[in-house]
Amino acid sequence: MSQKENIQSHDQYREDIAGRANVADSPELLAYYKELETYKTGALWTIANKIEPWQPKSASVPVLWRYRDLRELVLKSADLVTPEKAGRRVVYLNNSEKAGLSSAVGLLYSGLQTMRPGEAASAHAHSSSALRFIMEGHGAYTIVDGQKMLLEANDFVLTPTGTWHEHGVDSDGSQCIWQDGLDMPLVNVLEAGFYKVHPDLRQAVTEPLDSSVGLWGAPALRPQNVGWNKPYSPLFRYQWGATYEALQRYARVAEGSPFDDILMYYTNPLTGGHVMPTLGASMQLLRPGFVGKAHRHTGSFIYQVAKGQGYSVIDGQRFDWQERDIFCVPSWAFHEHVNSSQTEDACLFCFSDLPVIQVLHLYYEEALIDNDGHQRVGG
Amino acid sequence: MSQKENIQSHDQYREDIAGRANVADSPELLAYYKELETYKTGALWTIANKIEPWQPKSASVPVLWRYRDLRELVLKSADLVTPEKAGRRVVYLNNSEKAGLSSAVGLLYSGLQTMRPGEAASAHAHSSSALRFIMEGHGAYTIVDGQKMLLEANDFVLTPTGTWHEHGVDSDGSQCIWQDGLDMPLVNVLEAGFYKVHPDLRQAVTEPLDSSVGLWGAPALRPQNVGWNKPYSPLFRYQWGATYEALQRYARVAEGSPFDDILMYYTNPLTGGHVMPTLGASMQLLRPGFVGKAHRHTGSFIYQVAKGQGYSVIDGQRFDWQERDIFCVPSWAFHEHVNSSQTEDACLFCFSDLPVIQVLHLYYEEALIDNDGHQRVGG
Amino acid sequence: MSQKENIQSHDQYREDIAGRANVADSPELLAYYKELETYKTGALWTIANKIEPWQPKSASVPVLWRYRDLRELVLKSADLVTPEKAGRRVVYLNNSEKAGLSSAVGLLYSGLQTMRPGEAASAHAHSSSALRFIMEGHGAYTIVDGQKMLLEANDFVLTPTGTWHEHGVDSDGSQCIWQDGLDMPLVNVLEAGFYKVHPDLRQAVTEPLDSSVGLWGAPALRPQNVGWNKPYSPLFRYQWGATYEALQRYARVAEGSPFDDILMYYTNPLTGGHVMPTLGASMQLLRPGFVGKAHRHTGSFIYQVAKGQGYSVIDGQRFDWQERDIFCVPSWAFHEHVNSSQTEDACLFCFSDLPVIQVLHLYYEEALIDNDGHQRVGG
Amino acid sequence: MSQKENIQSHDQYREDIAGRANVADSPELLAYYKELETYKTGALWTIANKIEPWQPKSASVPVLWRYRDLRELVLKSADLVTPEKAGRRVVYLNNSEKAGLSSAVGLLYSGLQTMRPGEAASAHAHSSSALRFIMEGHGAYTIVDGQKMLLEANDFVLTPTGTWHEHGVDSDGSQCIWQDGLDMPLVNVLEAGFYKVHPDLRQAVTEPLDSSVGLWGAPALRPQNVGWNKPYSPLFRYQWGATYEALQRYARVAEGSPFDDILMYYTNPLTGGHVMPTLGASMQLLRPGFVGKAHRHTGSFIYQVAKGQGYSVIDGQRFDWQERDIFCVPSWAFHEHVNSSQTEDACLFCFSDLPVIQVLHLYYEEALIDNDGHQRVGG
Repeated sequence: MSQKENIQSHDQYREDIAGRANVADSPELLAYYKELETYKTGALWTIANKIEPWQPKSASVPVLWRYRDLRELVLKSADLVTPEKAGRRVVYLNNSEKAGLSSAVGLLYSGLQTMRPGEAASAHAHSSSALRFIMEGHGAYTIVDGQKMLLEANDFVLTPTGTWHEHGVDSDGSQCIWQDGLDMPLVNVLEAGFYKVHPDLRQAVTEPLDSSVGLWGAPALRPQNVGWNKPYSPLFRYQWGATYEALQRYARVAEGSPFDDILMYYTNPLTGGHVMPTLGASMQLLRPGFVGKAHRHTGSFIYQVAKGQGYSVIDGQRFDWQERDIFCVPSWAFHEHVNSSQTEDACLFCFSDLPVIQVLHLYYEEALIDNDGHQRVGG
Repeated sequence: MSQKENIQSHDQYREDIAGRANVADSPELLAYYKELETYKTGALWTIANKIEPWQPKSASVPVLWRYRDLRELVLKSADLVTPEKAGRRVVYLNNSEKAGLSSAVGLLYSGLQTMRPGEAASAHAHSSSALRFIMEGHGAYTIVDGQKMLLEANDFVLTPTGTWHEHGVDSDGSQCIWQDGLDMPLVNVLEAGFYKVHPDLRQAVTEPLDSSVGLWGAPALRPQNVGWNKPYSPLFRYQWGATYEALQRYARVAEGSPFDDILMYYTNPLTGGHVMPTLGASMQLLRPGFVGKAHRHTGSFIYQVAKGQGYSVIDGQRFDWQERDIFCVPSWAFHEHVNSSQTEDACLFCFSDLPVIQVLHLYYEEALIDNDGHQRVGG
Repeated sequence: MSQKENIQSHDQYREDIAGRANVADSPELLAYYKELETYKTGALWTIANKIEPWQPKSASVPVLWRYRDLRELVLKSADLVTPEKAGRRVVYLNNSEKAGLSSAVGLLYSGLQTMRPGEAASAHAHSSSALRFIMEGHGAYTIVDGQKMLLEANDFVLTPTGTWHEHGVDSDGSQCIWQDGLDMPLVNVLEAGFYKVHPDLRQAVTEPLDSSVGLWGAPALRPQNVGWNKPYSPLFRYQWGATYEALQRYARVAEGSPFDDILMYYTNPLTGGHVMPTLGASMQLLRPGFVGKAHRHTGSFIYQVAKGQGYSVIDGQRFDWQERDIFCVPSWAFHEHVNSSQTEDACLFCFSDLPVIQVLHLYYEEALIDNDGHQRVGG
Repeated sequence: MSQKENIQSHDQYREDIAGRANVADSPELLAYYKELETYKTGALWTIANKIEPWQPKSASVPVLWRYRDLRELVLKSADLVTPEKAGRRVVYLNNSEKAGLSSAVGLLYSGLQTMRPGEAASAHAHSSSALRFIMEGHGAYTIVDGQKMLLEANDFVLTPTGTWHEHGVDSDGSQCIWQDGLDMPLVNVLEAGFYKVHPDLRQAVTEPLDSSVGLWGAPALRPQNVGWNKPYSPLFRYQWGATYEALQRYARVAEGSPFDDILMYYTNPLTGGHVMPTLGASMQLLRPGFVGKAHRHTGSFIYQVAKGQGYSVIDGQRFDWQERDIFCVPSWAFHEHVNSSQTEDACLFCFSDLPVIQVLHLYYEEALIDNDGHQRVGG
C-alpha cells in the first residue's frame, strides 16, 4: 500500500443529506476500517455516496475527431505497418484517460481502418460484436461466415459475435478507409472476451455475393424458410442508397423528433429489434435548417457525419462538424444537433450500446426545460 | 328429430383396429344411447373414430375460379345493386357445401369486390381481419384508421381487426376490382364476431397519404419512436414493385424450395412475423420452367395468379391457371405448381390461416415420396 | 338441392340500417344469384348480415349436467363395453344440436371416463390437446410420454398435443371417474386432426413416478437445465392440495374479482402462460356468501364444481349446482356465480379455449351495467 | 503525463502468432504514436492483444469470506455508527484491487448489513437492483413499494430497480444480519446509476403483509388479473421452507448435474425467467457425499452456504466452507464443489450476473477434461 493511500481520508464522500452516508472519521473508526481491510472488506458508508451517485457521471468527455486531422494519419499507417504484422491497421479513438478501457466513449470502442488494393487480412472470430461504416475508397469487401459482401461509402455492415470475418480490398480498387465499432470494452468488463484465429487464416466464400441482401434486404418481406437462430440480424449489409431513400420517404409523412428530426434504426428484419444484442445503430436526417432541442439519456453514442455539415452542442460545448467527422455523446450528457445548411440535408450515422441499456432496463431520458430547450454554450 | 336420424345406426364409424372404437349396436346399447340423449350426452365410442380421424379430411374441395368466368359477373353487380344497399358489392367464393360457413376454403372467406369511379362505401369495423389484393382498375383507395392509401394492381393491403375502414374510387379513376380475404368463418366458429358501423358513416383522413409506407416500408429500418402496440403490422400497404424486385433479388442468391421455388412472406416489420394474427400472406415466384414437387400440410390456402401462367395439381386434379385466376388448396391436400412458360416468370399471391395453425402448434407437413414426388393426375 | 332451398328467399338477412346489406329480391337478382351459383360463388349482400353479426350468437346453449344424473350412467358403461372394444369408456357431453361438432360448448369437447381396477387402456397420440380433472375413485394413473403420474380427486392433469398417453387403474384401486376435456372440435374445424395408436399398444415408463411434479411443481423455482422446447407445460399434474392452499393464501391478500372472486390460472411454469396452446384452465374460490356480478366475454367455458354448492345465472337462466356437477358458459353469454353457503368455500374448476381467443386477439369483455350488475332470471 | 508512462514501451503486448499484432517499436513508429495521442487516438496494434484476449482473465480472484471472521465485525458496526449517519450499516466484500469498483467479484457488489431491534432505515430508490439473503436474527422486515415482508433465515428477497425500499427490525426482534447483493458496479460502468431519497424518508405500507407471496408464491398458478408490467418478478420473497422442500422433491426424480448436483433457479413466475434483468439467483443442494466435477463459464458468482459444510476448489485453490460462509467464483475460473458430509445435506445459495451474460449472448462454458474432471489443488 502506498503512502498516499495510507493518509487518504475515509470520509471524502460525505454528504450532509438525510438518507446519505455522513460519517466523520475518528481514530476508533480508522482502526475499524484497517481491520476490515484485513479481511478483504470495507465499510460501505465510506464509499456509498461514490458508488450510488445521484445521477450518472460519465468517465468519458465529449470529443470531436475531425477527419481532416485523422485522414492522413490513417493513410500513413499503411506506410508504417503491414496487415500481417499489425493484424489490422487501425487508428483507434481514445477517450478513456480515467478508465483505461481503450474506449471511444463509455464502453464502446471505435477505430479507423485502412487497407490498400490487393491486401487481405486474416480471418478471426471473437465474442465481441463489430460493425463497420464505410468512409472512402472502392473495392473493399468483407467476408462473414462464408458470405462476401461489397463495401461502399456510407454502407453499414455487421460482423457479429462469434462470426469468422475478414476484410480486403480488390486489387483493382483504391485505398479504403472505414470506421470500426465494437463492444470490446463492455465484453472486457463483463470478462467474457474470447478470440480465435481461423485455422486456415482465410475462410472460403460459400455463398453468392451479398446473399444476405438478397434474402433479407427487402421491405417487410422474408424468405419462406428462415433457417436462422442466431441472436443477431441475418442481414449483414445495409446499403446507403436504400437507407437515404427511406429517410426521405419517412420525412414526407412524419413531423420528426424535436431532438433528432428524422431518425431510423437499422433492424434485425427477423425480429424488428436491434441489429445485434450489444450494439445498435441508426441513421438520421436533419432536414435543411433543422435546429434540434437538447435532451439527455443513458447510453453511449458515437456519431459519424454521413452527409452535410452542422454542429452539435454536447454538455455545453459546441462542436462543428462536416462530412466524415466523428464525435461522441457520453451517457447522460445533454446534446442538441443543428443542420447549418438551409438547403442541404445533413445525415448522421450513429452506433451505441442502446440495446444493452434497454434490455437491462436502464434507459432514462429527460428533455432540457430551461432556455427553450437549448444549452448555454461555453458556460 | 327426423325419422332418418331415428333409424340411423350408432355403429357407423366402427374400425376393427386395436385402439379404435369397434362396438356393435345391441338392443341394450341402443336403449342406453337413448337414455344418454335424454341428458344431453352420448357414448364417445359411437363417434370417436369420426371425431378423431387418422388424418385431416377437409370439408373443402380444390376449386379454380377462372377470372374470365367471374369478371363479367363481378362488373355486372355494379348494375344490379348500389353500394348503399349492398354494403359492399362483392361476389364471394363459395366452397362450403358441407359446412355452411360461406368459406372459400377451410375457414377462409374470399370475394371479388368492385367499385365505380366516384363511389365510396361507408366505414365500418369488425373483429374479423381483412386483406385486399388489387386486380384491376386505377384510382381505388382504402382508408384505415385515418390513413388513406392508394391501391394499384398487385398491391397487397391490410384492414386489420378492429380498424375503421372504407374503400372508394376517385372520380377520375376507372371501375376497379380487388379480391377481399377475411377470417370471418374462423371468427364465427370461435363465436367472436363483432361489427360496427362508423357513427359518421365516413371517417376523416388524419394522416398523410400512404403514411404507413413512409414509416414502415423500408428494408430493415424502423422509425425511432415506434408508438405501436397493436397485434398487427403497422405497414398497411405492400407495393407490387418492391415485392417483385425482392423476389428477383432473392432468386439470384437462393436455390428456392422444391415445392414453392422463390417464396416470401409479407411480414409485420415490427416483429418479423405474419402481418396479422389470423391471416398470413405470401408472394411467390415460379421461375421460367419451374416444375414443383408435391407436398401437403395443414392450413387452408387461397392463391391468386399475379403474373404468368401455369398449372397446379391439387389432390390429383390438374388446374390450369393464368393471370387473375384464383384457386384454393384445402388442408392436407397434396399440391404442386408448374410455370408453363420457359421464358416468363409466374407469380402467385397467396393468403392463408397459417398464423393460426402455427401459433396453435397444429402445423404438420409431408412431402410426397412416390412417383418422384409428383401426383398422378385424374386417378 | 332440396325443394325447400329452392324456394328459400335470398333476402332473409336484410337489415334496414345504413352500412348493412338491405337488398330486396327481384327476378333479375334471383337470376343473377342462380348464375353465380354455377361458378361456386354467391352475392355477399345476401349473407353479409348473417356472417358479420353485430355480436356473437353462440351455437351452444347453457347446460348444467348434474352428477347425480350422470354418475350411474357412466358407471354402467363399464358393464356394457370393454376398454378394448370402446377404446375409452366415455359418456360425452353434447351441446351441438346446431353444429354437429360433438362439443360440450363452442369448440370444446368434454366427457366423463370410467375405468375399473386392473384395467388399462391402450396408448395413443393425437394432435388434439387433452386434460383430465379427477372426480372420484383411487388408484388411477396416467402415463404421458413415459411419465407415470397418480390421479387423485380434484387433481388437474395434462396430456398435451402429440404426446403418447394411456390411462389405467391399479388393481388395488377402485372404479374411477374423471372428466376429459379436449380441443377436438377446434382441431377438426381447423382440419388438423391426426391420430396414432402406439405401435406396442402400451408405452414403457421411463421416468420416476410423478417426475414432472418433482421438476416443475415448486413455487417460482425451476430446474437448472431446462431441456424443454415443447409448446406446452412441462408440469403435467397440478395437485389439489397445493392448489386449494394457494387459493386460500391468495384470498388473504387480495380483494378478489367482483365476477369471479379468487381465481387462479394453472400455468406453464416455464413461461407463466397457459398450460397448453389451445386449452387453458383455472380453479376459483368463491368465498362463503360470495355473490358475483354478471359479465360476458368471448371464449367457451366448462366448469366443474370441485367443492361446495351454489348457483350460476347464465344468459338469464339459473343453474343450481353442487359438487361434481358440470356446466358450461357459451361465448358472450352473461354469467354470474353465487356461493350459497355462508360458511363453506365453493370451488369451481374451469377449462376453456381462452388461450386461442387471446392469442388470436379476439378477446372482448363487458360487465352488465343494469340492475346493479345482476341478470333478471327467467326473463 | 508521468515519466513512467513516457518510457513505457508500446510493444509490450506483442505475440508472435499469425493473426495477432506483432509490431516492434521503432523511432518512426514512436513518433507516429506520439502524434496520434495529440488527437486522442492511438494505434490499435499496440493494444490489440490486450483488449482482445484469447479468453477472459478476471480482474477478481477467488476469495472465501469466513463468517467467523466477519460476524463480530459486522455486529460491531452497530456500536460504531447509527443508521441515520451511515445510511446503511454494511460491511462490504472487496475484491477489486485492480478495478476500483468496490465489487465482491466481477461487477457484483455484496455486503453484510446489520440492524438492531427497533431500528428502521430511511426509504430510498435507485436504478440498481438489489437482493437480500437472510443470515441470522428474527423480526427483520423489508418494505418494497408499499409491500411489507418478513425476513427469516435463508429467505431470499428482492428490492428491484426503481422500487422504494427500506429495512427495519421490529422492536421485539433480535439484532439481524443479512447479505445484500447488488449490480452497482455494472450499473456504474454502464453509467446509468440514479439515486433518490424518499421525500417522506419513510413510505406507507399499502398492501397486506407478504402480499406478493399470497399472489405469486404458488406452484404453477397465477392470479387471474395480473396487472404487472415491470421487468422483474412480482414475487419479492422466496421462503426457505418451500425452497428446501422443492430441492428435496427434485432430488428424488432427477440425477442432478455432475457439477452442481441439484440446482434450482429462483424465477419470475410471470415469465419463467430470472428474477431481475441484471441479477439472477439459485439455491442448490449437494447431497451427502456429493463430489462435483470442475467446469468453468463466463459470469460472476457469489455463494453463501445456507446449510452444511464442504469445500470448493476454485482456480486450483481449495476453500473449506461451513454455514454462512461466503465465497466467489470469478468469470472463467474452474470450480468444483464437494459436500464433506456423508449424512447431511449441504445447500449453497448463489447470486450472479447470469441474466446479463445470457441476454447479451456472452455465455460460454467448458468442462475440465483432464484428471477425471478434477483440478489439481495448489498448483
